[in-house]
Amino acid sequence: MNRHDFEALDAHDPLRALKKQFVLPPGIIYLDGNSLGAQPFVTAERVRAVVEDEWGSGLIKSWNDAGWIDLPHRIGDKIGRLIGARPGEVVVADSTSLNAYKVLVAALAEVRERDPARRVIVSERSNFPTDLYIAQSVAQQHGCELRLVDAPENIPAALDASTAVLMLTEVNYRTGALHDMRELTADAHAAGAVVIWDLCHSAGAVEVDLHGADADFAIGCGYKYLNGGPGAPAFVWVHPRHVERFEQPLSGWLGHDAPFEFTPDYRPAAGVARYVCGTPAIISMAALECGVDTLLSAEPFGGMKALRAKSLQLTERFAALAESRCGSLGVRVVSPREPSRRGSQVCLALDAPLQEAGYAVVQALIARGVIGDFRAGDPGRLDAVPHILRFGFTPLYIGFSEVWDAVEQLHQVLSTEEWRAPRFALKGAVT
Amino acid sequence: MNRHDFEALDAHDPLRALKKQFVLPPGIIYLDGNSLGAQPFVTAERVRAVVEDEWGSGLIKSWNDAGWIDLPHRIGDKIGRLIGARPGEVVVADSTSLNAYKVLVAALAEVRERDPARRVIVSERSNFPTDLYIAQSVAQQHGCELRLVDAPENIPAALDASTAVLMLTEVNYRTGALHDMRELTADAHAAGAVVIWDLCHSAGAVEVDLHGADADFAIGCGYKYLNGGPGAPAFVWVHPRHVERFEQPLSGWLGHDAPFEFTPDYRPAAGVARYVCGTPAIISMAALECGVDTLLSAEPFGGMKALRAKSLQLTERFAALAESRCGSLGVRVVSPREPSRRGSQVCLALDAPLQEAGYAVVQALIARGVIGDFRAGDPGRLDAVPHILRFGFTPLYIGFSEVWDAVEQLHQVLSTEEWRAPRFALKGAVT
Repeated sequence: MNRHDFEALDAHDPLRALKKQFVLPPGIIYLDGNSLGAQPFVTAERVRAVVEDEWGSGLIKSWNDAGWIDLPHRIGDKIGRLIGARPGEVVVADSTSLNAYKVLVAALAEVRERDPARRVIVSERSNFPTDLYIAQSVAQQHGCELRLVDAPENIPAALDASTAVLMLTEVNYRTGALHDMRELTADAHAAGAVVIWDLCHSAGAVEVDLHGADADFAIGCGYKYLNGGPGAPAFVWVHPRHVERFEQPLSGWLGHDAPFEFTPDYRPAAGVARYVCGTPAIISMAALECGVDTLLSAEPFGGMKALRAKSLQLTERFAALAESRCGSLGVRVVSPREPSRRGSQVCLALDAPLQEAGYAVVQALIARGVIGDFRAGDPGRLDAVPHILRFGFTPLYIGFSEVWDAVEQLHQVLSTEEWRAPRFALKGAVT
Repeated sequence: MNRHDFEALDAHDPLRALKKQFVLPPGIIYLDGNSLGAQPFVTAERVRAVVEDEWGSGLIKSWNDAGWIDLPHRIGDKIGRLIGARPGEVVVADSTSLNAYKVLVAALAEVRERDPARRVIVSERSNFPTDLYIAQSVAQQHGCELRLVDAPENIPAALDASTAVLMLTEVNYRTGALHDMRELTADAHAAGAVVIWDLCHSAGAVEVDLHGADADFAIGCGYKYLNGGPGAPAFVWVHPRHVERFEQPLSGWLGHDAPFEFTPDYRPAAGVARYVCGTPAIISMAALECGVDTLLSAEPFGGMKALRAKSLQLTERFAALAESRCGSLGVRVVSPREPSRRGSQVCLALDAPLQEAGYAVVQALIARGVIGDFRAGDPGRLDAVPHILRFGFTPLYIGFSEVWDAVEQLHQVLSTEEWRAPRFALKGAVT
């Protein structure tokens, strides 16, 4: 195949028109939407209206007149359509870390009420660190234990009568590996535990069916595939069978049953509304809604099912091309090749003698306009946990021509060895 | 005195020019800056630049290139200048409710390490409910007790050898009453407890000197007198003597000592940086910085000292005028008249037979362009806790002429009894 074949794939892609919704700087191939999604054109005008019209002119009245007070629920319902949740089951609030804290404490309380001996939270050592940090804090405060599994295939065996909660991120942030949500949820339930799914790298990227998987709790962020803007607020979903049973600990006034009664005693709101805590950051919330709307714009074209199908084509072609074009230059695909095991990103590693070159190669690619990112490996054992060149493929705005061009640029960076230029060398800590 | 005298006060007010920084709709007298501050003109352009230039064009690189990663600290330092904190002692993060949770757990851990018998959190029944709700949650999880004091003068007597933490809001959200931070902090320390000060109605409104008062912890919001926009992120300060001693429980990845090492174990960042939790909502943070800058623009004119002096003049004149012009119509001033006991707001109540008319009177005032708000009293004992008509005076953008005009409008609403029109009546719950 050649570039014309990839152009032809674009020409026949019914989702191609959706790209027009996004601001993408000329000359840039943006393969980092798994870290920060691109900006929808409508966001600028919407944010302007919130700042100038709703805040500037409407002032305090906009809490009601412009519907600010409803945003956590209105945007939550829209996100729910992307992840297999029903209306009224999702709210937007705070950050992923904070929502992890809320659901973990609630989940522990629920399981331990029926079986106080269950005191273990099971997760993966390779989970995104913030989930682990929060779990460590919760475990310490509640006399529980966080047990980390090294390999995904060992998760089922780690679940036993001591397990209270299984807490996993569906798509691994480093490798792009995708868990089987349905199977692992069933394993956890069979062991008497409940499951928290972190959807940070799933929402808007893969098909998620929370009810279909019979999941218990889910959290996720708004600034990756949901295109909500830097640090966009996060979301939280709780299965109806759990939601009324426990209060979450971050009991802010907007999760109260009647916040404007200003009563001194906390009385949790019905349903998932109790997972709202303090006053939400409205300007960032408004931007998030614009991002979520870009995903919903795919509904007439098949929605998440069609986006997922395209995503798998993009990532498979990138992986295959990277291997065929750059394999002899030391490039190896780290992400699973089996479609059902892969999220919407492809991670590459470099074999010896280039195993330390990853950072510089990513910098050289960025200088050529191909934006991916670098995630450091384990310095002590780069064979097992290599440095990773990470490329996210957002099917809403990435096309097949860009897949071709990105691999071509990678080939040039490696074949010319331009990554060896001092300006691409790692200086100080990676940030 | 007449309106000309008030105009003359404006003409001689050196702070008057600062009002030009704000968007204020024509025909509106905005006395609700204690709930949502007005919009600075520069905010619109700054937010546009963040959305279109930094996010849209800069994409992921803006975390470093545009300094997003530094915003919690950069804005924190600016807020520090308004509240008597030193550089590096304040961070912007999350909401007031969440910061209350962080400091309360940390404070309890610290006190109880030296004296496990201290298990009481003392606060006021009239504190803003979110502080009480968070304290209830923390008390329940940590086997502690929340003890609420009914009258401010009884706070010192409530402090004893069982007290771990005194948690107060410096300016009462309903009445505008101002605590003596220095005295109550000394009382708490003498009893062996530590103090958390909620500065939501103080920062940018009254002179706060955290070090001068020898305070322990402080929190506050960004959307009232700091003019940061709806739901602007909040701030947290921890005295250096406490900050390294305990981890706060909401241990998100951006409070880690080296977040981009992505290590599985939490290691708190040095100093107050550990009070950052998840990824901050950057667009709302940028708006907050514009708001804080409007306060700093007063520094050449005397800063918070000058703003406080003007605020006291505004509130005293409003209170005096409301009494002299509207006292015979049933208006009574609820906020303290003693300047050292009053924040930057004046609350009015209506005497019998109008004690139930407050909501309608506020609505009628709003219809005339005077925006204040209504806070319901205790239906069972309106004599002790009356309905309140609440008026905030932001010295940056409120002038003396507006004080005159607001009272004049109140006089007309009451003397004409236009508040009795059905369109002003309370329908359903107050929101």
